[in-house]
Amino acid sequence: TNPVYTGLPTTIFEVMSQHAKAHGAINLGQGFPDVDGPEDIRRFAAEELVAGRNQYPPMMGVPELRTAVAEANKRFYDLDIDWQTEVLVTSGATEALSDCLAALIEPGDEVVLIEPLYDCYLPLVRRAGATPKLVRVTPPDWKIDREALAAAFGPKTKAILLNNPMNPAAKVFDRQELELIAELTVAHDAYAICDEVYEHILFDGRKHTPLMTLPGMRERTLRIGSAGKTFSLTGWKVGYVTAAPALLDPVTKAHQFTTFTTPPGLQKAVAYGLGKGDDYYTALAGDLEAKRDRLARGLSKIGFGVVPCAGTYFLTVDTAPLGLGDDDAAVCEKLTVEAGVTAVPVSAFYQSDAPGNFIRFCFSKRDTMLDGALDRLARWV
Amino acid sequence: TNPVYTGLPTTIFEVMSQHAKAHGAINLGQGFPDVDGPEDIRRFAAEELVAGRNQYPPMMGVPELRTAVAEANKRFYDLDIDWQTEVLVTSGATEALSDCLAALIEPGDEVVLIEPLYDCYLPLVRRAGATPKLVRVTPPDWKIDREALAAAFGPKTKAILLNNPMNPAAKVFDRQELELIAELTVAHDAYAICDEVYEHILFDGRKHTPLMTLPGMRERTLRIGSAGKTFSLTGWKVGYVTAAPALLDPVTKAHQFTTFTTPPGLQKAVAYGLGKGDDYYTALAGDLEAKRDRLARGLSKIGFGVVPCAGTYFLTVDTAPLGLGDDDAAVCEKLTVEAGVTAVPVSAFYQSDAPGNFIRFCFSKRDTMLDGALDRLARWV
Ligand SMILES: CSCCC(=O)C(=O)O
Ligand SMILES: CSCCC(=O)C(=O)O
Repeated sequence: TNPVYTGLPTTIFEVMSQHAKAHGAINLGQGFPDVDGPEDIRRFAAEELVAGRNQYPPMMGVPELRTAVAEANKRFYDLDIDWQTEVLVTSGATEALSDCLAALIEPGDEVVLIEPLYDCYLPLVRRAGATPKLVRVTPPDWKIDREALAAAFGPKTKAILLNNPMNPAAKVFDRQELELIAELTVAHDAYAICDEVYEHILFDGRKHTPLMTLPGMRERTLRIGSAGKTFSLTGWKVGYVTAAPALLDPVTKAHQFTTFTTPPGLQKAVAYGLGKGDDYYTALAGDLEAKRDRLARGLSKIGFGVVPCAGTYFLTVDTAPLGLGDDDAAVCEKLTVEAGVTAVPVSAFYQSDAPGNFIRFCFSKRDTMLDGALDRLARWV
Repeated sequence: TNPVYTGLPTTIFEVMSQHAKAHGAINLGQGFPDVDGPEDIRRFAAEELVAGRNQYPPMMGVPELRTAVAEANKRFYDLDIDWQTEVLVTSGATEALSDCLAALIEPGDEVVLIEPLYDCYLPLVRRAGATPKLVRVTPPDWKIDREALAAAFGPKTKAILLNNPMNPAAKVFDRQELELIAELTVAHDAYAICDEVYEHILFDGRKHTPLMTLPGMRERTLRIGSAGKTFSLTGWKVGYVTAAPALLDPVTKAHQFTTFTTPPGLQKAVAYGLGKGDDYYTALAGDLEAKRDRLARGLSKIGFGVVPCAGTYFLTVDTAPLGLGDDDAAVCEKLTVEAGVTAVPVSAFYQSDAPGNFIRFCFSKRDTMLDGALDRLARWV
């Protein structure tokens, strides 16, 4: 069996969710909302399943969703996207990442990654045959170091894989950082695979800037979005890739032989959802911002060192002020079993030499859950 | 970009469907039913979308579906399957194939394939880093040649990928053939990846025999099924892999980083569907058998050389008796544009040196459509 997948552990998010369930803990681990997304979107899909057509849709996605994605790119980022040749619908952002890497990478290539990183990145890069080149950012500001990033690029660099807003750092890359990334990507004639699933979850008045909008990047960027995160329907597994035709074409071929298509009823409902007014998007970020503040305030009061959160629905905290030791996995285990609150150890986002004093909480949960978790933690400390 | 996916054409099934639409042709090309599967299954899923939970289900699939798959294995094939460690739900059989190959194959391995073959097989084998070893079967009986198959196996053989019942040949492997395949697979300590999506579509009293049930195969076979084919819901993209824990484990890891999960509402509805009584399964095959006969009779009357069809919902015909030349792609083009009936050129199922006188019709269509197509073809000839 293939060494990339042999002996690999089950993803930490699944493990912690099962753990939470087994111990009756409040699950602030795996990133998903505990209230489903808009009922009208779900009813739209339900209607399609009953009265619509449930056979293979077009391989690249139903026209309704591809045009909606193109329109959203125009509306939010002033990007002119041709829906017929520049948009691909996938079975979630994970499939999108898998397709992009399978299609763009050749054995021997190098891929630049920013660490901490989402746990599918490294196996996907390795299975595609590439060598990962990691650049680390560190809290509390998670700033990119110009020299370190430049050093990670080289003659074999085929792509950079960027997550912005960034999980678990809750970092939003600033203009200067994006310019640096763009500059290096152009200079090395590389691609940028941009996992931007949290594009609508930025706080404190921030607006998302797709790397694709930077000079020189339109033709070399693959931009990935997700209905799971934007519409709080993580189970639907509807994602989309936007890229120039020459780049998207091989990705499309990887997709056609990975899942081929995505359920048409769900696609049409997501197309409907993308057309929602600004109030929907404002409320999404606004509600989550209030939850961030609620959880941050509470965790800080308990004594955790709360790391700033500019986007995503994750809050990372430093456990050192509470003297919890430097084994974050053990801390998360303890919190689940003893306190009844589940978080995710941030070391799971590192290839090696991870810091051991950070754990991540997901705050896309009902206020009663957040308050309940804070109560439990306060009692436990 | 990766050479496996670069410059690859769009899958012939999609191409012909678009072609049919553009010309208002009756589409007997791409394999899907023109009437959706059971309304109760669709209503079950719709209810889940509205009243159920739309967040990440367990990575291996919801327990309801995994137990239903295990039970179906017992009911139909007397296989004892542990639902917790031996069943994985995937986003369609295509993802299942992609996961199996990504997980089992290492660069330098060889994979044995029977040609004609489904069009995702070769790219998936190549992208996994393996060399395909093709063994050809030919109409009308599509018999496996013992020597040829034995010659395809060698010290580098990691797996055989078998489609049974076989698309487009509409062949059902007989006991002797399965025994030969099992014998060679065991002798070379290889795996068998069995694409058995048409397991419930066999005719003339035939019963499906999973390769997994043969001596020595239980521990080395990965058996793939599909709700799309069994419940006439090809758009849902719900598939499942059954395999021994040691084999399924790496496949599960490939899955967790390919799509991670499959929509829970669809999964639960498929679980419900798998529990349907024998009458459902009998009617599925019976209705399709009648359609096969209807189309075969008509095509034969028109002058096509109808190749026997033992399973699947495809009928392959020889165009030579009608003197249509040996460019099957041109014939399908002509039939679409001039006759208003779309078929698929069987040469699309070959790596090279394909015969040019066979085209494939899909008969999982309303009788009025089959009759309409026959009328059009008769007029055209
Ligand atoms: C694959 S489940 C993980 C969900 C998520 O995005 C996270 O928790 O970081
Ligand atoms: C990927 S669409 C093809 C459907 C099918 O199984 C076929 O037509 O052979």
